[in-house]
Amino acid sequence: MLTENTSDQVGGMGEAALIREMLTCLGSAGPPPPHGPGDDCALLPAVGRRRLVTADPVIYKQHFLPQHSPRDVAAKLIRRNLSDIAAMGGRPEAAILSLSLPRQTSIRWLKRFFRALGSEAMRFEVTIIGGDCSESEGPPGFFMTMLGQAAGRRVLTRTGGRIGDMIYVTGRLGGSLLGRQFRFQPRLTEGVWLAGQRAVRSMIDLSDGMAKDLPELLPPGSAARLDAHQIPIARAAERRAKETGRPPLHHALHDGEDFELLFTVSGNTDLTRLERDWRGAFDVPLNQLGKIVPRSGSTPPILIDHAPDNFQLNRGYEHFR
Amino acid sequence: MLTENTSDQVGGMGEAALIREMLTCLGSAGPPPPHGPGDDCALLPAVGRRRLVTADPVIYKQHFLPQHSPRDVAAKLIRRNLSDIAAMGGRPEAAILSLSLPRQTSIRWLKRFFRALGSEAMRFEVTIIGGDCSESEGPPGFFMTMLGQAAGRRVLTRTGGRIGDMIYVTGRLGGSLLGRQFRFQPRLTEGVWLAGQRAVRSMIDLSDGMAKDLPELLPPGSAARLDAHQIPIARAAERRAKETGRPPLHHALHDGEDFELLFTVSGNTDLTRLERDWRGAFDVPLNQLGKIVPRSGSTPPILIDHAPDNFQLNRGYEHFR
Repeated sequence: MLTENTSDQVGGMGEAALIREMLTCLGSAGPPPPHGPGDDCALLPAVGRRRLVTADPVIYKQHFLPQHSPRDVAAKLIRRNLSDIAAMGGRPEAAILSLSLPRQTSIRWLKRFFRALGSEAMRFEVTIIGGDCSESEGPPGFFMTMLGQAAGRRVLTRTGGRIGDMIYVTGRLGGSLLGRQFRFQPRLTEGVWLAGQRAVRSMIDLSDGMAKDLPELLPPGSAARLDAHQIPIARAAERRAKETGRPPLHHALHDGEDFELLFTVSGNTDLTRLERDWRGAFDVPLNQLGKIVPRSGSTPPILIDHAPDNFQLNRGYEHFR
Repeated sequence: MLTENTSDQVGGMGEAALIREMLTCLGSAGPPPPHGPGDDCALLPAVGRRRLVTADPVIYKQHFLPQHSPRDVAAKLIRRNLSDIAAMGGRPEAAILSLSLPRQTSIRWLKRFFRALGSEAMRFEVTIIGGDCSESEGPPGFFMTMLGQAAGRRVLTRTGGRIGDMIYVTGRLGGSLLGRQFRFQPRLTEGVWLAGQRAVRSMIDLSDGMAKDLPELLPPGSAARLDAHQIPIARAAERRAKETGRPPLHHALHDGEDFELLFTVSGNTDLTRLERDWRGAFDVPLNQLGKIVPRSGSTPPILIDHAPDNFQLNRGYEHFR
């Protein structure tokens, strides 16, 4: 995405021309002002629902590499933000994109990126309503803020889980590095459905790996007791395990960027019925991994039954470590 | 803001600890989730008004330099976003902050920055409701998205000006490089007041300099005819002119980052009354610079009467040139 070919470099193009080019590529995903880019602010209509706001970037060498296509990078940028909206049970609405680009950034790469961003936005019914474009000496970075609306009266937060709750996860986990990190499906309709189920009490999306994200759902004085046999392991986690020599379970619990939904359900629920209703509505697998139990002084926050001998949990991915 | 002292570097601190430190420094400007940082999304209440969204970053070496204090950088970040809200006649509400930091970023610098950001946010009644924190190999960057609400039924956009409109500007222009680029006052109450005046038709904030920003207010087939004697020149523009050898008028029309409001008023208005009402409400100077006139084929978009001999307008600041 960086080029030595000066005629393809964004430096010298001019900010105004770059923004025009971006709007052309975005097509109808970038509506005219005041509801789209072009004025001092973009306008959002008044609606009778609460709004949701989240922000996630993709930065060169941190979230993608030279070999990744502009299409993959655009998909990742939009979808990781959508996954946060899904995790609250919301519907996406609009996105704001701030670009930080060195002069060597390839115009050709950017055009392909903007076109992909436009088609991703259309697909998920999001409009790109504004942003900013700055020159920088650093690696290219795409900083998105996403706005959504609560789908109903209820949104699901990370707090709300209680001791006795069952822990569920959508999809299969691990090995996202082998491709799913770009091509995952944000669980939007599933998130809305779950927020509509009274028995569901708390939810998070798995972005940094179960080992780091699951503790966010645990109320004080509690731990998660999981059954290793119930943890849905992606085939990619098995392939990855062959590369690393670690058990597939390690990858299912530690690899980041699954972007599946992890949620807790009241133990006083007809779980069979909930699971049957889910299967009636969605093809995505749903697995009950374990439950929230009382935690005594020195126990770790996650206990795993039926794990391989000497299996150890460590923290998931964290910046600045 | 970058340091060789490893014990003061953000690398090794851990993202979680950095976010905790930020929240401590922000104090009550960073409310608890779900209305502040800490969940997958932040929640904004449903309100009966339209919302406004804008985004502006500050990036090291682009928008500030090593000699600038964390307090100045925080003020600039918040205020340049506030100025965009002001330019629509809105009231600010909440901000989302994405950080992109190299490992060498000084923790001490960041703490001072976050504390200043908290006090700026409190001062302007904005809460910091969420964001993201990523490691990067590039220069430190602070990417803000600001949300606001329309103050009344009407918001002012850049379009809406017509031939015959009078052109007004608040404050005095030029030389912001000498300090005002960090210590300007976003014209929030003035913006709300102007949006409430039916005679005011269009508005923009001066961020890239009059020469670049004024054409944004001109409808097709029109030009701006200004009187050089009526252009309010800041003392800093005169000081700057001594350094550059250019006329102070050059700096008043080309220097960016004035963050004053430029707006157009219907010519069929009692302008004397409007100006008197303004003076009754605000101490900030208000000047009528000229008017919107029909444009014939080859005339430039801005004509200046009483300019110094050989005075030439060029474009204001633009990234990637």
